[in-house]
Amino acid sequence: MVNYHTLTQAEAVKFARGIKDVFPEDAQLDSRELGDGNLNHVFHIFDQASGQSIILKQSLPYLKMVGQSVPLTLDRVRIECEALRIHGDLCPDQTPKLYAYEPDFALIAMEDLSDYTVLRRGLIERERYPLFAEHIGSFLARTMFFTSDLAMDQQEKKLRVKSFMNPELCNITEDLILYAPFTKSRMNIFEPQIRDAVEQIWKEEELHLEVALLREKYLTNAQALLHGDLHTDNIFIKPDSIKIIDREFAFYGPIGFDIGTVIANLLLNFSGQEGWSTDAEKRAEYRRYLLDTINDLWTHFEFEFRELWNDYASARLVNTRGYQESYMARLLQDTIGFAGVIMLCRVYGFIHVLDIDDIKDAEARERAQRTALEIGVALIKRNRSAHSIKEVLDIALKAAI
Amino acid sequence: MVNYHTLTQAEAVKFARGIKDVFPEDAQLDSRELGDGNLNHVFHIFDQASGQSIILKQSLPYLKMVGQSVPLTLDRVRIECEALRIHGDLCPDQTPKLYAYEPDFALIAMEDLSDYTVLRRGLIERERYPLFAEHIGSFLARTMFFTSDLAMDQQEKKLRVKSFMNPELCNITEDLILYAPFTKSRMNIFEPQIRDAVEQIWKEEELHLEVALLREKYLTNAQALLHGDLHTDNIFIKPDSIKIIDREFAFYGPIGFDIGTVIANLLLNFSGQEGWSTDAEKRAEYRRYLLDTINDLWTHFEFEFRELWNDYASARLVNTRGYQESYMARLLQDTIGFAGVIMLCRVYGFIHVLDIDDIKDAEARERAQRTALEIGVALIKRNRSAHSIKEVLDIALKAAI
Repeated sequence: MVNYHTLTQAEAVKFARGIKDVFPEDAQLDSRELGDGNLNHVFHIFDQASGQSIILKQSLPYLKMVGQSVPLTLDRVRIECEALRIHGDLCPDQTPKLYAYEPDFALIAMEDLSDYTVLRRGLIERERYPLFAEHIGSFLARTMFFTSDLAMDQQEKKLRVKSFMNPELCNITEDLILYAPFTKSRMNIFEPQIRDAVEQIWKEEELHLEVALLREKYLTNAQALLHGDLHTDNIFIKPDSIKIIDREFAFYGPIGFDIGTVIANLLLNFSGQEGWSTDAEKRAEYRRYLLDTINDLWTHFEFEFRELWNDYASARLVNTRGYQESYMARLLQDTIGFAGVIMLCRVYGFIHVLDIDDIKDAEARERAQRTALEIGVALIKRNRSAHSIKEVLDIALKAAI
Repeated sequence: MVNYHTLTQAEAVKFARGIKDVFPEDAQLDSRELGDGNLNHVFHIFDQASGQSIILKQSLPYLKMVGQSVPLTLDRVRIECEALRIHGDLCPDQTPKLYAYEPDFALIAMEDLSDYTVLRRGLIERERYPLFAEHIGSFLARTMFFTSDLAMDQQEKKLRVKSFMNPELCNITEDLILYAPFTKSRMNIFEPQIRDAVEQIWKEEELHLEVALLREKYLTNAQALLHGDLHTDNIFIKPDSIKIIDREFAFYGPIGFDIGTVIANLLLNFSGQEGWSTDAEKRAEYRRYLLDTINDLWTHFEFEFRELWNDYASARLVNTRGYQESYMARLLQDTIGFAGVIMLCRVYGFIHVLDIDDIKDAEARERAQRTALEIGVALIKRNRSAHSIKEVLDIALKAAI
């Protein structure tokens, strides 16, 4: 990486021009910078004449956090790129096209998704996406199944686990999601009105045991290649399609973590509905839509994962009676546990969600926060005894009364 | 590895002479070759005058199996050497001294253990080792605890998991121990008189589910740095000391696998007592000694592991009520499950044990085999519901009646 420096817009354009088969040879390329530059510089590069455009993402060797710059490995770009390739092979419909990768500059050129909406934004605006559950369920089923020991040669899988060792980025999740929220830590940021609820969580021993067990799974259980950060800002959507972005947290971990991240973010929006409509009926209707989506997402995931298992797993795995049942039951339990943990950290941990934080009315915002905390705590407590996704819906409905 | 070739004795002596601070400068070194050369060439190099001696072990790039040579990675020497260093730091008393490592020749020079007995041989001769349980329990507790997430920095541990990825050797265990014995495979070798018992195992669905779950743990659960092949041929012993050899199977896996391997081998000897004494009282007495050893081994392991946890784990782990209980309970269950699987494969799988195979009398040998199979099956069936090491002793006693 001797040549690494942050690119100017001119250099970004020059690099884009060098990529084969994207822009016409005589294209007049324009560019603009997107994003906040905390982790990456993102350039949107386009040719007005042909309508062609791409995204150039250059990763920075640091992370801006709490006003400080913390060094952060650029190996995450290699990881993102390898995960993009694997997901592109398994789920081309849900994966942005990768045009180029330049390791020396920690640079990835990929498909421009300007015609998509960020899912979190869509949900805040109470859009409905009838195909989302099926699309994300399928993405999760295929990427998880085909990267796990259920489908892979044992040796190839181990080499892949090795290549996706991602200690620095996993460490962020381990500390910010699976540790800090359960202790009095300066990494927790919350408004004084919910202090009582947060302090209650710091005290609840039953909860801490469950979190310790979930954290242990996150640290030790190399089940499948995860996205690692599958919240609703990393899902781009339009009515007939989703695209999953930002794979720099990818690593081999417990499958339930990714599914749980999606569900947690849907439930955070569910909680946030408190502030987005004063019309109780409309609110209830959209909440019903969100719960249906969670139910359909899990149902579709489970159906497709089992189908893949029956079609592609070795005869030994297919024929071991009870093993698939046990595997799926444990996936659901992990999903519910991780969903709960992720909800909590997004309410009072280090990184919040706009679904709740952007609620203007302080009382409504507090109600939304408390609803999310109630759901999160209940999911964590339930995780190891859960048997059905319906339990998640019941927990959410009960908290929203 | 451009220079790699199998060393002649003269070259081995020359290499030994080059190692600092082992032999006097003017030593007259002699050498002899030990072992069968299926996997490694082993030279014993000694100086009659000073009494100094070492072992030189050169690994071969293949494994002789079923009359064929199968290529086998020489990276296993690096792994053995790194594991030797880590274990040497943690448990110098139980780890042979490492004098030199020459990667180009896949060569390790280490402490000569000629004054020790191979534990399996000792047990077959009905020796008693009153300190063994404490020594091995301590070795297991220290090496497991200090290489796990309980003691290590999260990031360092992940780098270590990466460096101990050992796909080729793990594959041998996965196939020969955790797969073949549960299916009609040419890798199973057994005498016709126990065919009915073996076929019964191939049919038992309850058993296959348990084995699938144990295999999943072996494949995915990077809990601590295991020895990976801790049977009683790899434990050298004298009354006041043990030394653990042969770490080429080392990898990050479930702790219970190593403990289970030791216990399985003690129980194989327990089963084999059928053939080693016609005196029922003597047999029962030695069996009692073996069961006491298993009980003491687990008790000592658990005591020391908990003590290390309380002294060295982060405050979060120490203070999470119930977590240590849960962790230890799961370790015991894994131990019991893996012990059962290992017993079965050593009776009718690809690699047997002399404790049983060397019994001359065919009827006694069959009784020993059936006893071992009965114990193994019962341990596997019990594993997930076990709560005490006493259950192992009861299962063994019942099978030996």
